[in-house]
Parts: sequence; C-alpha cells; structure tokens
Amino acid sequence: MKPALSKLGQRTALPPISWLMQTALTRPKLISLAAGFTDNATLPVEISRKLLNEILRSPKTGQPALQYGITAGEMNLRMLTARHLQKLDGGHDSGHSPEHVIITGGSQQLLYMTLEALCDEGDIILVEDPTYFVFLSILQSRGIKARGVKLEPDGIELAHLEQVLTRLKKSGELRRVKALYLVTYFQNPTGATTSLAKKRATLALLKKFERAVGHPIYLLEDAAYRELRFDHGEDVPTALTLPGAADRVIYTGTYSKPYAPGARIGFGILPETIFTTVQRIKGNHDFGTANLLQQLLAGALASGLYDKHVAKVRKNYAHKARVMKQALAEHFPASVEIWESGGGLYFWARLPDEIPTGVKSKVFQAALKADVLYVPGELCYADDPARARPDHEMRISFGSASEENIRNGIKRLGTVLRKFL
Amino acid sequence: MKPALSKLGQRTALPPISWLMQTALTRPKLISLAAGFTDNATLPVEISRKLLNEILRSPKTGQPALQYGITAGEMNLRMLTARHLQKLDGGHDSGHSPEHVIITGGSQQLLYMTLEALCDEGDIILVEDPTYFVFLSILQSRGIKARGVKLEPDGIELAHLEQVLTRLKKSGELRRVKALYLVTYFQNPTGATTSLAKKRATLALLKKFERAVGHPIYLLEDAAYRELRFDHGEDVPTALTLPGAADRVIYTGTYSKPYAPGARIGFGILPETIFTTVQRIKGNHDFGTANLLQQLLAGALASGLYDKHVAKVRKNYAHKARVMKQALAEHFPASVEIWESGGGLYFWARLPDEIPTGVKSKVFQAALKADVLYVPGELCYADDPARARPDHEMRISFGSASEENIRNGIKRLGTVLRKFL
Repeated sequence: MKPALSKLGQRTALPPISWLMQTALTRPKLISLAAGFTDNATLPVEISRKLLNEILRSPKTGQPALQYGITAGEMNLRMLTARHLQKLDGGHDSGHSPEHVIITGGSQQLLYMTLEALCDEGDIILVEDPTYFVFLSILQSRGIKARGVKLEPDGIELAHLEQVLTRLKKSGELRRVKALYLVTYFQNPTGATTSLAKKRATLALLKKFERAVGHPIYLLEDAAYRELRFDHGEDVPTALTLPGAADRVIYTGTYSKPYAPGARIGFGILPETIFTTVQRIKGNHDFGTANLLQQLLAGALASGLYDKHVAKVRKNYAHKARVMKQALAEHFPASVEIWESGGGLYFWARLPDEIPTGVKSKVFQAALKADVLYVPGELCYADDPARARPDHEMRISFGSASEENIRNGIKRLGTVLRKFL
Repeated sequence: MKPALSKLGQRTALPPISWLMQTALTRPKLISLAAGFTDNATLPVEISRKLLNEILRSPKTGQPALQYGITAGEMNLRMLTARHLQKLDGGHDSGHSPEHVIITGGSQQLLYMTLEALCDEGDIILVEDPTYFVFLSILQSRGIKARGVKLEPDGIELAHLEQVLTRLKKSGELRRVKALYLVTYFQNPTGATTSLAKKRATLALLKKFERAVGHPIYLLEDAAYRELRFDHGEDVPTALTLPGAADRVIYTGTYSKPYAPGARIGFGILPETIFTTVQRIKGNHDFGTANLLQQLLAGALASGLYDKHVAKVRKNYAHKARVMKQALAEHFPASVEIWESGGGLYFWARLPDEIPTGVKSKVFQAALKADVLYVPGELCYADDPARARPDHEMRISFGSASEENIRNGIKRLGTVLRKFL
C-alpha cells in the first residue's frame, strides 16, 4: 500500500549534492573540490575541551547547561551575539538589540523557519542568480517560487532587480513576493560580496515596489560566510545598519563556519513581528537549541577565545585560497573566467557559454574519470521561466581539501578543461 | 505596514505553557508543579565532562565531532540506538535496523518533520484525549485537525477508537486520516501506559479501516518517557515488535529525558518511505543534528555510563513520586481521582466534573494566590467538535520540584481544593 505523503513530502527531493557526496565516497582516490565543509585542521578541538571543562566543572554551571532553556536562546549568548555584531559593524548598533536575537540550530534552521513564517505555497522569493542550493531546495519543497536576479561581483544587478519587480507587478504577481534573499558576504557559490551601496539601493527599490502591494518585501540577508574574510579590505556593514532597515531586514548568521559545524549554533536578528512568529515556530520545532552548545559558544565569545580562533581560521583560508589561485593561474585555460573572492570557501569558474559543466556533461564526466569533483553551476540556479538555466559554470572549494589536494585537484581539472577549450 | 505572514505564520499561536512559565517567573515564592523539566540534581554533569574530554582529547576524535556529519545521524549512534532499543524490547529486533534509525534535535523535531511528511492542511491526526500539548500546537499551526480518542489508564479505549473511525468513514473524512498519535509510556499528561494488547488491537483496527481509503494509517508511537520507569513492572515492548508493524509504526524516542535536555538528542525508527522523506526534510531543516552531541551520547551508550546514569535517575524519580503520592493522600480531598503512574514525571488529578480547573477558573486563580502552579487539564485536549473540552483536571509534575516543594506544593494545592470540594 502506497503511503499518502503530504504535498510537501512528495515535493521534497533528494538534494542534488547528496549524489555528489555519494560519488565521492565510492571513489577513494577522488579529490573533492565540491564539499562546503570547513577545514578539519583548524577546528577548535582544544579550545572546546577547555571551555566545556569549565562549564561542566561544577553543578552550578553544569546543570543549567544540561537543562532545557528558553525557546529564543540563552539571554547571555543573545547579548554576546548582539555585541559581536555591533563590533563587526564598526560600533553601529541599530537593530542589534538582544531581544530581537534568536539562537537556532545553525542558520539553516532559521532560514527554514523564516520561510515558514512568511510564505504560502505559490508565494515568490527573489534570489541571486546563482544562489545557495539548499535554500533553493527549501523553496522547491515548500512550493515557493524562486525568481532570479542577475549577480555581479559586487552584488545583484540593480537594473535587473527593477526589471524583475516591474515584470512581476505587470503580471499581477508582485503581491506574492515576500522577500529578496541575498547571501551578502563571499557568497555561496560565487564568492561575491554585496557592497553597502547596493544594499542601500536594494532596500530602497524594495520599499518603492512594496507600496503597490501594501505589505513589506523583506531583505533576507544571509551572512553565513561573513567572518571568513581573508583579504585586507574592510568588513562591509550589514543592511541592518541602514536607515529604515529595522522592520525590513531579516539577518541570519552562524557560528558553524567560523567556529565549528559540529557545535551547530546559528543566529538571527529579526523585525519584531517576524521574531515573534519565528520564535513560536521554533517552539513547535524543538523549543530551543541545545543549551550545552549555546553555553560553549557563549564561553568562547566571552573569553576572547572565539576571536583568536577566527583570526587563525582566516589566516588558514587566506593561505589555501592563494594556493588555489596560483594553481588556477598555472593550470586553467585563459578562456575560463575566475571570480576571485576575498573570503569564504569558494572560487567560481565560468567557462565559455557553449561548454556545459552539468552532471551529465562531458566535462563533468571527464573530471570524474580524472578523479576530481566540483559542484556544477547549474545546481545553483533557480527554476525560473524567465531564462534558460545557465550550465557552464563550476563552484570550486578550497575549504576542506588539503594544500596538496588543492594543487593536484586543480591540475587534474585544468587538464580536463584543456581538452574542451 | 502590516507584514504578510503565511497561513502557518498567522496560525502559530503563543504556546499556552509560555504564559504559565512567565507567571512562574513573576512570583518568586511560587512552587511550580507545572514544568515538564527533568530534575537538575540528577543531570549527568560529571559523566558528560569525562566523555567530552575523551572525545576532545585528540584531533583524531575531536575533529570529526566538530565537523559536519550525515543528515540522518552518525552511523555509530544509530547502531547503538538500534541495539539499545532491542535491549529494551527484550532482544526482539524487528524493525530495529540502524538504516531506519534517524537522529534528530530531540524527538520534538522528529514529530514536527513526520507531520510535515504526512499531512497537508485539513488532514486529520487521531490523538489521545488528553495528549501532549505541544503536539497539539504543531497540529494547530499546520492546520491539521485533531480528533480525540478516550484514554484509560492502560491506553486508549478501543471501542471508542472504532467509533471515531466509523464516524469519520461515514462522513467521508477517513481518507484525510494519516495517523494515530499515542504517547505510549507514562503519558504526558496522564501517566498512562499503553498495554501491548492494546497496541496490537489498535494496529489491527487501523489496518482494517485503512483498506477503505487505500493508504496506510500510521501508528505514531511517542516513547519519550519510556526510560523513566520506576515501578518494578516489566517494560512493555514497543508496537514495532508486533507482526506487520514494520511499515505501519513510526517510533520516536529521546535521550533528552533520561540523559540531558541540554544535550538534545532524539531519535526515531521509521518505515522506509517515511524515513526517506523525513531524512530529506531534515536536510532542508539543518542537514543533521550537531555532531558533538551525537558523539557525547554515543560515548555514554558505548561505555555503559548511560545505563548507570538512567538507573540513578529512575531511583530519584521513584522517590519523588512516592513523596508526591504520600502528600496527595494526606492533603487532597478524597473526591479527587488520582491517576498514579509507574514512571515519567506526572500525576493526573481528576476533580468532579462540575469543578473547572482552567486558567480562568476559581481553582486556578486560588492556587496562584496560594503560590502553587499546575497545568490545567484543558490545555491537553484537542479542539474536537465531537465533545465539549473537559476542564476539570490537572497535571502535577514531580520532575523538577524539590522534595520539600513537592510536599509544600501539594499541601497548598490540597488546601485550595478543600475550599471547593
């Protein structure tokens, strides 16, 4: 007898990345430049041991850490998080009140719950073209439509955002648009960082168009990679710092990438109504993220060990990115356009339009045969009837691969590409 | 400008228990017999410190614990969990394959995702009358209808289950019924434990009725309190051990209650299709529960420290339940019917029908004035048009209150009740 799954259950597909990961497991000699994992070598093993020992040294601090907490998260961690963000934003504190900070099981869980709070089936979320593929999986699973906005190395193309909004207004679909989702720092997959000027102009454009529909069109700012900056440029302030942002910007961040994915703590700063709704939804999901992990992160932040650790992590990724950059210069054909990043875990390679890189393409198959794996760019594009899905790009990660594997992987991939270019 | 929340966002209400918890905070002298917290005194502080030290002693074991893992959970913990359940079930292994075990952020998250996989808005879940109130909150938030089945101290009333199913069949609603949800061990709120005979008969009844609709009606067995047994009776095997259960029983359990809520690890054993769907949904929620906590629980189980700890916890609750039982005998009027439990955290008190106990009742207000808090029974009943909502009961917990507070709390509550009875 066939089960009667919900529509959501029926729609929820095997994540495309699962197939890539399983492929990696079946070929022991394969070098994966596909995984978005952080580098094992810099995970804070010793720091975490020290901090957990302190927490669990006495019943007085140990018992609360092992007990239930509050749905929105421990007030101490929420305060430290607000202060941490304020520091990143150069002291600017608008919208950084601890009362509007929520702690979640990674920022992924917060993205999920935010979409639950905002979107019905058939609603529309605007996304960067390309964007974070697990976000696209959530949209697909929940029956939410994604519409792409062209991406440049400093953020979305504003003229195209206006075009897309105008088109949706004409077709009567603007009322279904609930938010624009931007991965604003060292974006997954392209490495692009959105400039503050673009954040400002984007917020203004959204406010202009929302008047026609009578409800807010939120700017959902995903800052997952923000702290993995390794160039020497200044940190770009979040959209939260802009005038009029407090009730329009939903900010999500995470301690997974800079600290440890295995101690999964994400966070967000939300406008009041959204905060209230998401907090209630979280009550139904799990009534609060594991206290022990919250205390661990609070300890790391309060002691300054977190900042020291992040400095080390950034140095490591800076080095690995340089290694990859050199290897790309040496082995990749000149006709491949590389988007270099000032942080994060990824480089973005754009082949000439006529050379597909997708899972079924000759390039991908030849790469597999040469024992090297990348993420095909096509997986990062929404289903959008307004354009054909681009399929000539690749995301290449230097996050978890060793230096040697970065060099050899890029060499193998370069050799493959030279056959086609 | 008013935000355009989703239907789910609009429906998701403030959990009724929040109000109770906030009330507790504003009255420092209040004795709360309402919270479902576990006892701080028996939380495994020293054990957790020892185990985490071992995991984080070397990069070899520490790094994987701080890295991303697999969506369904670490295979080691899944194997240990399958073995643990097999032991609880007296060696019976049907349906306990590690491949069908999923690890989640508490069993609450698994309940949430199971409902996402199975139910559209307007679908129906049968529940015990009364049942776990946060489960009712999820149903309400997702627009799923709940229909109650009368509960006796050894599980649901089978004749009533048949009546309810027959009524739904006649009204054409049977096709919307996706599952029957039972909290089978030391139920929240009543303490009732479902006998194996009732599990068997229930499964047979569901199978009989599902033929008319052509899709499975699952038995969703929530065993959250299973390991908190303190009487000397035998553990009742799960419905998973019954013939024909493998593709009909969804089993959820947790290490939160017996080990530590602050190291929130839940688990489930699911029929294959449901497993696949829930695993994908979990990929969208958080791609896997924090590895560090999974390793902690795996360490506790593998070393035998878990079993030793649970034995201690059970002894503690057995003692506190005896204290409460004595206090109830001494202070409560004879006309109050007490459902005693052989485990868990709760006693269930039933007043005469004409004495309401709800949040706005005289009894509740007088109890608050006397600085003692209980959970009004009415909060544990579904919105079900087939009956008026019973409102003359109370859930009284001995979980987190101290011995002295149990004695004094029951004395205060008894004094209040004697005024009305």
